[in-house]
Amino acid sequence: MQQSMRLAVLGAGGLGRAAVKIISQKKSLSLAAICDSKGYAYNPAGLDLEELSELQAGQSVADVSKDGKLSSDPINEIIQIGSSHIDGIFIALPNLPNAFMADTLKRFIDAGFECAFTDALKRTSAMEMLLKLSQELKQVKSTYITGAGASPGLLTAAAVIAAQSYISIDKVDIWWGVGISNWQEYKATVREDIGHLDGYDINCANAMSDAQVEELLERRDGKLELRNMEHADDVLLELAQVVDSRDKVSVGGIIDTRNAKKPVSTTMTLTGKTFDGKTSSHRFILGDDTSMAANVVGPALGYLKRARWLKDNGLYGIYGSTEFMPMMVA
Amino acid sequence: MQQSMRLAVLGAGGLGRAAVKIISQKKSLSLAAICDSKGYAYNPAGLDLEELSELQAGQSVADVSKDGKLSSDPINEIIQIGSSHIDGIFIALPNLPNAFMADTLKRFIDAGFECAFTDALKRTSAMEMLLKLSQELKQVKSTYITGAGASPGLLTAAAVIAAQSYISIDKVDIWWGVGISNWQEYKATVREDIGHLDGYDINCANAMSDAQVEELLERRDGKLELRNMEHADDVLLELAQVVDSRDKVSVGGIIDTRNAKKPVSTTMTLTGKTFDGKTSSHRFILGDDTSMAANVVGPALGYLKRARWLKDNGLYGIYGSTEFMPMMVA
Repeated sequence: MQQSMRLAVLGAGGLGRAAVKIISQKKSLSLAAICDSKGYAYNPAGLDLEELSELQAGQSVADVSKDGKLSSDPINEIIQIGSSHIDGIFIALPNLPNAFMADTLKRFIDAGFECAFTDALKRTSAMEMLLKLSQELKQVKSTYITGAGASPGLLTAAAVIAAQSYISIDKVDIWWGVGISNWQEYKATVREDIGHLDGYDINCANAMSDAQVEELLERRDGKLELRNMEHADDVLLELAQVVDSRDKVSVGGIIDTRNAKKPVSTTMTLTGKTFDGKTSSHRFILGDDTSMAANVVGPALGYLKRARWLKDNGLYGIYGSTEFMPMMVA
Repeated sequence: MQQSMRLAVLGAGGLGRAAVKIISQKKSLSLAAICDSKGYAYNPAGLDLEELSELQAGQSVADVSKDGKLSSDPINEIIQIGSSHIDGIFIALPNLPNAFMADTLKRFIDAGFECAFTDALKRTSAMEMLLKLSQELKQVKSTYITGAGASPGLLTAAAVIAAQSYISIDKVDIWWGVGISNWQEYKATVREDIGHLDGYDINCANAMSDAQVEELLERRDGKLELRNMEHADDVLLELAQVVDSRDKVSVGGIIDTRNAKKPVSTTMTLTGKTFDGKTSSHRFILGDDTSMAANVVGPALGYLKRARWLKDNGLYGIYGSTEFMPMMVA
């Protein structure tokens, strides 16, 4: 690994744009490449992050970066750069359809691209598809930490820590609040959330026009309340043996799409039984002034540094964010 | 490693006795050996934990276990068992004087004892002595996770997770509440706490008779309030690069020695600045009905499983509880 860790970010939506801003504040990171659905930008000496920080929703990196180019297959352009120029990849793709993340990783594997990876994947079924690639990933000496955002990610890891005090775990309850002042900044995220509402699924949410999304939000005063979401916290906590059944994990929350202030404090509550026969709960509560972007992208980069560390120490394959500590990025 | 992980516990004070009870409730663990200052007990097929669970404060394992023997050097007896019969060692020694933990580990190293280790070490200076042995420990292919209790341990690890949301960390504040119904169950712990009071140090606290401790507690209505304690959370968070200076970490709390109910909820609060310019705080709050023993020994065993995993994967040396996730123990 170089003095500075050279990153590629796949995706330039809300999370990708936040990643650009965070990387620009980290001395030990540089951004070598970024792509979106229309194009990519690459500079082996590091992209101009000030320029990229101006990227607005709906724009392509190909338009705003002096190193940008349009492409019909931007992910392939990143693969063609080759792994000798990239130390870590944060996959910040919207992950629609469900198999998109696994299919994308498969392309890197098939190209023999040897690297460290993280994602901010949310849905259980998408993660299950991804986890099947662990053996293939080992063959190309790569290391991938999945579910490395906030939920799953930060909150799920906190559940593993909390679980240590107990002999058995009764339930893990994640209840989040997200406030965004303009839903159009997070189009993919909001559509994913709509996909969790009763009567909707991810495909029909993805097929909705912006006007239809607006209309749905209007009917609900800008707020979506979601219960029993399909969130991969369940599979990660089952894999880490925190729960003996994923039914013991529930994820839900409220997103306010018209107010940057969170409607509720995001809280992970783990309830279990202690060796001395007590039932009790540990809680991990996120500060209300931390944005979704801070709580997702910060951990994803911290886990990316850990994934690189694991790779450099010969530990390959796919791991959950529940299995290793994220590392601080200077 | 065998089907069941064969442990040795060094120390049979409050923490050692809690370890016996927790191990007896874990299918995947067995206790091969335990020692205290007067003797030890060893059975390669696993000690009788029901028998050992009856151990009272002041008694020696040599007296209550049918496999028990008196010894003038109980730690040496454990060393003589040899590392082919022990998969992991939890060092639950009172750590008085300061160099005791490092000296003990040195004895294992000098004997070429190849194993996984954890401790529930508290004081910064004791941990600094220990950390210096990392290279020597690597030579004997052993792995040691230090500060694997509650503070440092559970709460410090939660701080590393929490820190991921922030660009820079202003402070980490650990404020604990401990309630014990009878201080004589935790003589060493209470003396360590007294050593943190103004006008006391660890040596004079250690030299106090039980009657003197009683008298001090009587004057304070059974409660000790401690601020700016020398706790190794600071060195661990500095090592993990969560803080750029250990002065940003403060540890304190209240121990009530006459009431099992906690006088305050144990809370880790991490305050930092986000990439988008906000100052905010994440909190990790332990359930009031979890005892000190549950919050210290549970993590220590979870980290011991991780230490063994690291060793089995060729990663040797001394690590902090801030560097790796503990693992669940079935």
